[in-house]
Amino acid sequence: MKNTFGSSVSVTVFGESHGAAIGAVLDGLAPGIPVDEEFIAFQMKLRQSVGALSTARREADSVRIVSGVFNGRTTGTPITFIIENQDTRSKDYGELAYKARPGHADFSAQMKYHGFQDFRGGGHFSGRITAGIVAAGAVAISALRGRGISIGTHILSCGGIYDRSFGDINADTARLGSMEFAVLDDAKAREMQAAITAAKQDGDSVGGRLETIVTGVPAGVGEPWFDTLESILAHALFSIPAVKGVEFGAGFAAADMLGSQCNDCFRSENGSVTAPTNNNGGIIGGITTGMPILFRTAIKPTPSIFREQQTVDLNTLENTTLQIKGRHDPAIVHRARVVADSVTALVLCDQLAIRFGTDWLKAE
Amino acid sequence: MKNTFGSSVSVTVFGESHGAAIGAVLDGLAPGIPVDEEFIAFQMKLRQSVGALSTARREADSVRIVSGVFNGRTTGTPITFIIENQDTRSKDYGELAYKARPGHADFSAQMKYHGFQDFRGGGHFSGRITAGIVAAGAVAISALRGRGISIGTHILSCGGIYDRSFGDINADTARLGSMEFAVLDDAKAREMQAAITAAKQDGDSVGGRLETIVTGVPAGVGEPWFDTLESILAHALFSIPAVKGVEFGAGFAAADMLGSQCNDCFRSENGSVTAPTNNNGGIIGGITTGMPILFRTAIKPTPSIFREQQTVDLNTLENTTLQIKGRHDPAIVHRARVVADSVTALVLCDQLAIRFGTDWLKAE
Amino acid sequence: MKNTFGSSVSVTVFGESHGAAIGAVLDGLAPGIPVDEEFIAFQMKLRQSVGALSTARREADSVRIVSGVFNGRTTGTPITFIIENQDTRSKDYGELAYKARPGHADFSAQMKYHGFQDFRGGGHFSGRITAGIVAAGAVAISALRGRGISIGTHILSCGGIYDRSFGDINADTARLGSMEFAVLDDAKAREMQAAITAAKQDGDSVGGRLETIVTGVPAGVGEPWFDTLESILAHALFSIPAVKGVEFGAGFAAADMLGSQCNDCFRSENGSVTAPTNNNGGIIGGITTGMPILFRTAIKPTPSIFREQQTVDLNTLENTTLQIKGRHDPAIVHRARVVADSVTALVLCDQLAIRFGTDWLKAE
Amino acid sequence: MKNTFGSSVSVTVFGESHGAAIGAVLDGLAPGIPVDEEFIAFQMKLRQSVGALSTARREADSVRIVSGVFNGRTTGTPITFIIENQDTRSKDYGELAYKARPGHADFSAQMKYHGFQDFRGGGHFSGRITAGIVAAGAVAISALRGRGISIGTHILSCGGIYDRSFGDINADTARLGSMEFAVLDDAKAREMQAAITAAKQDGDSVGGRLETIVTGVPAGVGEPWFDTLESILAHALFSIPAVKGVEFGAGFAAADMLGSQCNDCFRSENGSVTAPTNNNGGIIGGITTGMPILFRTAIKPTPSIFREQQTVDLNTLENTTLQIKGRHDPAIVHRARVVADSVTALVLCDQLAIRFGTDWLKAE
Repeated sequence: MKNTFGSSVSVTVFGESHGAAIGAVLDGLAPGIPVDEEFIAFQMKLRQSVGALSTARREADSVRIVSGVFNGRTTGTPITFIIENQDTRSKDYGELAYKARPGHADFSAQMKYHGFQDFRGGGHFSGRITAGIVAAGAVAISALRGRGISIGTHILSCGGIYDRSFGDINADTARLGSMEFAVLDDAKAREMQAAITAAKQDGDSVGGRLETIVTGVPAGVGEPWFDTLESILAHALFSIPAVKGVEFGAGFAAADMLGSQCNDCFRSENGSVTAPTNNNGGIIGGITTGMPILFRTAIKPTPSIFREQQTVDLNTLENTTLQIKGRHDPAIVHRARVVADSVTALVLCDQLAIRFGTDWLKAE
Repeated sequence: MKNTFGSSVSVTVFGESHGAAIGAVLDGLAPGIPVDEEFIAFQMKLRQSVGALSTARREADSVRIVSGVFNGRTTGTPITFIIENQDTRSKDYGELAYKARPGHADFSAQMKYHGFQDFRGGGHFSGRITAGIVAAGAVAISALRGRGISIGTHILSCGGIYDRSFGDINADTARLGSMEFAVLDDAKAREMQAAITAAKQDGDSVGGRLETIVTGVPAGVGEPWFDTLESILAHALFSIPAVKGVEFGAGFAAADMLGSQCNDCFRSENGSVTAPTNNNGGIIGGITTGMPILFRTAIKPTPSIFREQQTVDLNTLENTTLQIKGRHDPAIVHRARVVADSVTALVLCDQLAIRFGTDWLKAE
Repeated sequence: MKNTFGSSVSVTVFGESHGAAIGAVLDGLAPGIPVDEEFIAFQMKLRQSVGALSTARREADSVRIVSGVFNGRTTGTPITFIIENQDTRSKDYGELAYKARPGHADFSAQMKYHGFQDFRGGGHFSGRITAGIVAAGAVAISALRGRGISIGTHILSCGGIYDRSFGDINADTARLGSMEFAVLDDAKAREMQAAITAAKQDGDSVGGRLETIVTGVPAGVGEPWFDTLESILAHALFSIPAVKGVEFGAGFAAADMLGSQCNDCFRSENGSVTAPTNNNGGIIGGITTGMPILFRTAIKPTPSIFREQQTVDLNTLENTTLQIKGRHDPAIVHRARVVADSVTALVLCDQLAIRFGTDWLKAE
Repeated sequence: MKNTFGSSVSVTVFGESHGAAIGAVLDGLAPGIPVDEEFIAFQMKLRQSVGALSTARREADSVRIVSGVFNGRTTGTPITFIIENQDTRSKDYGELAYKARPGHADFSAQMKYHGFQDFRGGGHFSGRITAGIVAAGAVAISALRGRGISIGTHILSCGGIYDRSFGDINADTARLGSMEFAVLDDAKAREMQAAITAAKQDGDSVGGRLETIVTGVPAGVGEPWFDTLESILAHALFSIPAVKGVEFGAGFAAADMLGSQCNDCFRSENGSVTAPTNNNGGIIGGITTGMPILFRTAIKPTPSIFREQQTVDLNTLENTTLQIKGRHDPAIVHRARVVADSVTALVLCDQLAIRFGTDWLKAE
């Protein structure tokens, strides 16, 4: 299965950056879940992001739902989201038909699709394809909320500037949901934005880290082998463009800990089991413990930079140089944030439906 | 699909630490691939590992192949590996029937299996289950070698001590294959072993990092969305017990780079395309570039430590303390190494069969 | 996976009879395959079918391809087909909101979707959803033709009238492709049409049988267990609405044969292996033999009839009667024909890509 | 996925007729289900079947469970069944290394596995592989019984002799469970056995039909497209060796009915919805209605007959003749009966777990 993810609840993405339309099909979600088109539009807006920090390309990104919703609620059949492409200036991309942009998928696409791929604007590899994921994810997020499950992602780092960690999880998560530039510490947000602007002025770009926390997922979800919840989440997260690393709980830092430091000692509080630390990120043996699920995602700097770069000509396979023009983001970590939330929501809807049945997410 | 991984080439694991037998079914591998039982036994030995650094449990781990091999070659039908359990001292585990070991899956297993799980020695969550993966992986490694594909993994760090990075990839990979404690720098190997011994004497344990490199995979393998090669590899790697992080190429460090530092500029050399840097780890847009595939895996310290720990009683959900006895590893990173190789080989056999057909791996 | 079928080449359907649009996503097809929009339109026309024998509902059924095609060829990424609904007279269906039509899925849908389903015109259960399958199937049929594989389906029986069997397979297949009412014997075609008209005038409906033959599929495709080619084809065929039976080769008649009658004795002719009989329908042990693939599909009579029928009220679960109004087909077997071709083509594209790799279907 | 079937509950088969062992892995079944080894042995006995009517090969077929069962109940992890092969007289098969037996998979196997297949006794294509399915199916049947779901299959026809149809479903189902030659009408049973004996004496073989009824499955299980319950059941049934047709409810006969005859008119009785007829076999729109699930399966005559047959030499591809020796069944329909029950049970366990969650089948 190529552009489809999930088993009981699945999402299929389609489209090219400069094609007629992009979108997604969300299948298997329980019937009866309210579909809030305003919330979808809001999430789409977050993905588009703000002025000077992002690409100058302006798309309405209005989402048309053509199936699977009736009287404002999910029917249980596939929900199809269509987003028409409008502001496509394909002439900017002429040279890219044959020069492989470093850090982009032009070369690997050529090796896979033999020149038949739609190269314009990155085609099917464009970050723009995440718009369909965000639309589908908005419905998934609503479904989870109906069962008391919340997801919050902040920009943990950008351009080398670090945000504080999660404190009061519920308050932080609630606040992050509506932030365009989702940083917990306002001063750090300004520093990050300055770093992005500096890179942009320098014709360069910056990367960053996202940190996600999920509360309310029951214990006992996931599998011991192969479909561990970490495996499934990482699988989905690594398909967000530019993600180069995923870690849970203490993550790579756990590798330097002693067992006596890393073990999360269980404690019983009023009959529910928890732990003062969460080095395992809420998942042990591949299965949720009921603690918050916590993970971090590394985003590489945007590969589109405005400096001359060395590369090869895809037709002749000879060395050449490339000067990228057009409209590009000096950073995408702030835009990727809502994509991480969306992907996480879609994974959890699937896993919860597998575990508790296809009706579990239904509004009661 | 729970204990099964892969689509065209798949592996299914089964068994419990103290059950009758453990093993794996490897399905879909091309017919005609030589099955070298000595190499399987050698790989099993590497997983068992060396004296003082590992558990005192001694299993022959002799692998019996009961199907799918005829006249020393794969038939193309499921290959079943059976490893009988022998040295099981279940009485050591009495108390663990009800006390959740911190860092172990006892609590999450209880929430999933409601007390019906075989708790002895971690049951189905035991690292021992990786023996079936290593047996299956040995055949996969042989199949890949027949197509010029090599996998090498070294212990990048253990107990805070770091090995050098890969230098001459082919020489390093060749050497690593047969090392029991797979560290490129001998002096660092001794330091790591000292760190493990120190932790052991202290009733504690250490974690580490593995770094894997794969050469010879053709460009054009993987998918742009959801089944990116990074997604599939991470999916499989996160099901190795104790893995808490996976990163490709520059990984988390890429998040702090500028685009101009991170982009791997393509160069043509004698008609083949390569790049002086490999910050993308051989995969861009989810698809191989033909550069070596490079990734790192974080392994948390062994959760079984010999110090009193706080925990809860699974029956009463009341607070209690726990003192683990029995035979345990003060580190598993050196044993996990061959598991990482095996999992990688199984993933690649699957992806190559999907891409190039079910006969591609067949010996010619 | 719910509304998705296939592994290497997959199709996802979406839409409701009276929703905004219906369609399909075809993913995984090799890059470089010519996409002939006229042929797609022609196939859509065949599915709509002819005047008096079919529903009075008139839809343009023009197919808009919004992704996956570039410069007239497949790119290798998902191809999305959108068909807008236009001639929807939902008021005809008012009573059906709560009265379960016998033979229709109204009752089972209610039990699955709890009243949230879009009941108008059968919603997602409507035969209209096959339009997306036919659009996707048209591209699949073209891809197969490029490799010398042909599919032909005729109406073997309708309303109790039987067509002759296949004679000159190549000639019959070539002729069937463009027939609106696909019967090999013209006299029988007229008798069948008379039977349909008679049933219609009587407020009743008729069923029928389809017989499909496929030539050019290489030997060695399929699996011995679970994914036998018969299993995969039957899986897909049984999802065509109204199909109640599938049989291969001699099918049910084989159950009354002796082994000496049923065995297809192999013969070698000019170095290629064939057999004078084809009681196994080209598949033995789940795997193609290289003989034509032959199967028959039973289609029940259209459940929408214009006679008063007994049923229950879905809200009160009390007994009531129902008089169906609106526009309906007195037979669908002639319209289902192109759907059978399409489903067969999609299955074969998937199986061939699994067997020979994702590029095998690519135009050379 | 090749030798694996199912998503939430899956079964993987392995082994060759004359290899070391055969078996199955049953994964995903809820924890806490009692595993009755006597019932497993009883089912295995039914599959082996009785004296003169079946092969002279005698296998103990004792099933060893090596994982997934603890204290007599399922743990929720993979259950592995191993059946050692013992009575293998491989020398009987010498000639079959190169002569393709008509009606058998020898030729198609050669085209798929290129001569590396284990040809002895049919290898992985042998009906013997169904022993693993029957062992796994026995546990599935027990799990379903715990939720009030019963499966009954009778030999509807054999050698042209027809049994009566189901009458009192519960009584018939209860009685069939323990019958070695499962025919409802005793006189017809004797006639069928005479037909088998006559064919055997003539060096020939006979086929037959199985009819299966399932009661107690809740309404609302299955999907409208692709994973219709008919699709899933047919998928599984067509992987039983020798099955050439599957039909539900009225099946192929429905093709000759009028809509007014075929529609099952719903009636409400004491608040539960049912119908006096069951021409749809308990499934409409791919989803259960709560009526009994009813289907028939066509079994071709055993291809191993003791008459000289024409065939080709697999090495030279030249015409030759073949005289089969060894031990073979003159009929398998009576042995296939318990396989049909087993496959049906495995499919239903999977579908119910998908619909209602992984714990639904757990003993309460």
